[in-house]
Amino acid sequence: MALKLYGAPMSTCTTRVTISLYEKDLDFELIPVDLFAGEHKKPPFLSKNPFGLIPVLEDGDDLTLFESRAITAYVAEKFKETGTDLIRHKDIKEAAIVKVWIEVESQQYQPAISPIVYQYFVAPIQGKSPDQAIVDANVEKLGKVLDIYEAKLSESKYLAGDFYSLADLHHLPYTYYFMKTPCASLVNERPHVKAWWDDISSRPAFKKVAEGMIFGDK
Amino acid sequence: MALKLYGAPMSTCTTRVTISLYEKDLDFELIPVDLFAGEHKKPPFLSKNPFGLIPVLEDGDDLTLFESRAITAYVAEKFKETGTDLIRHKDIKEAAIVKVWIEVESQQYQPAISPIVYQYFVAPIQGKSPDQAIVDANVEKLGKVLDIYEAKLSESKYLAGDFYSLADLHHLPYTYYFMKTPCASLVNERPHVKAWWDDISSRPAFKKVAEGMIFGDK
Repeated sequence: MALKLYGAPMSTCTTRVTISLYEKDLDFELIPVDLFAGEHKKPPFLSKNPFGLIPVLEDGDDLTLFESRAITAYVAEKFKETGTDLIRHKDIKEAAIVKVWIEVESQQYQPAISPIVYQYFVAPIQGKSPDQAIVDANVEKLGKVLDIYEAKLSESKYLAGDFYSLADLHHLPYTYYFMKTPCASLVNERPHVKAWWDDISSRPAFKKVAEGMIFGDK
Repeated sequence: MALKLYGAPMSTCTTRVTISLYEKDLDFELIPVDLFAGEHKKPPFLSKNPFGLIPVLEDGDDLTLFESRAITAYVAEKFKETGTDLIRHKDIKEAAIVKVWIEVESQQYQPAISPIVYQYFVAPIQGKSPDQAIVDANVEKLGKVLDIYEAKLSESKYLAGDFYSLADLHHLPYTYYFMKTPCASLVNERPHVKAWWDDISSRPAFKKVAEGMIFGDK
């Protein structure tokens, strides 16, 4: 039975998972969830994820997973011998460093970048202008995080070492939208971050997914 | 060479790690970092974690890890045959469900509970009263999360199934402080959540750590 992914092609959390599935050359069925109709907040979707959030992955009849970073970790582990090794499963020390930078994305990077993306992409759909105070506060936070990335990426090609991993992959969805905002200079003006971004965003697995990342008219 | 943990005994992120080390019956050296003197924001600490945050784990001369959830995952994986199995490493499906609930704690639970703990424990140290609007907004968020926990814990004894895991363990530090605030009724009035809390907070590994969790005069 093929993997079933419930989600939406433009969703940052859904695409985090689809990129990992493409890196693994896996077949899967993407089952669209109609967010505008609130399908994710009603049964039967709530029986798959009681938090009412996409994505959800079903692997066979007896395994239902939610939370995008848990799903990518499962995909990377179950299919560790297929496609790109995303977790460095043969070296416990490298695997540990991958986990460190997965957590950095989750705890430091996403909390700073997601409010900026929200202000430029979601607020307009709700008929609002971007709130400049929120943008400014988070640009400052993100700049500090990216200063540390710049130093790290001057020492190794990718965040966890000289190998592409889930730690890099998890950054793709938000950064893709972010690069379409007026704040993209935060990346462009840091040469190692820029080279890293150009590299990871040009991987075939991501380019396939990016085609569907259309948010409103952008 | 023993494991070296840089941190502070009352820190939620440090204790997340020390609990996991005690569950594994491991020897380690806790090296105190003087937060009030800003030791974590200066060299040489910044060479261990450029984000200037505790804890940091050193395992031998060539592995330095930060981000508490990455460290607990490493400890649970490296010492999987010792002490409590925290990641269900023999069953990939159970392991995947553990990862789901680890992410729930990280993405849903902590963002709601940590501002409440901050208002009651950190604001007073800074000479401020708790900001009731922040408390109220997060009590509402946390209540919704705990409604889902209540339903889940009526089906299984722990979050990921009928076994204790990292998913439960990660909740201990913040919830311990939270239970000393006037908002503790959020847990106490939900019988399955309360039974779960009583169970996980009475484990010997946590009780050892809780002795050092003294914040200001509380």
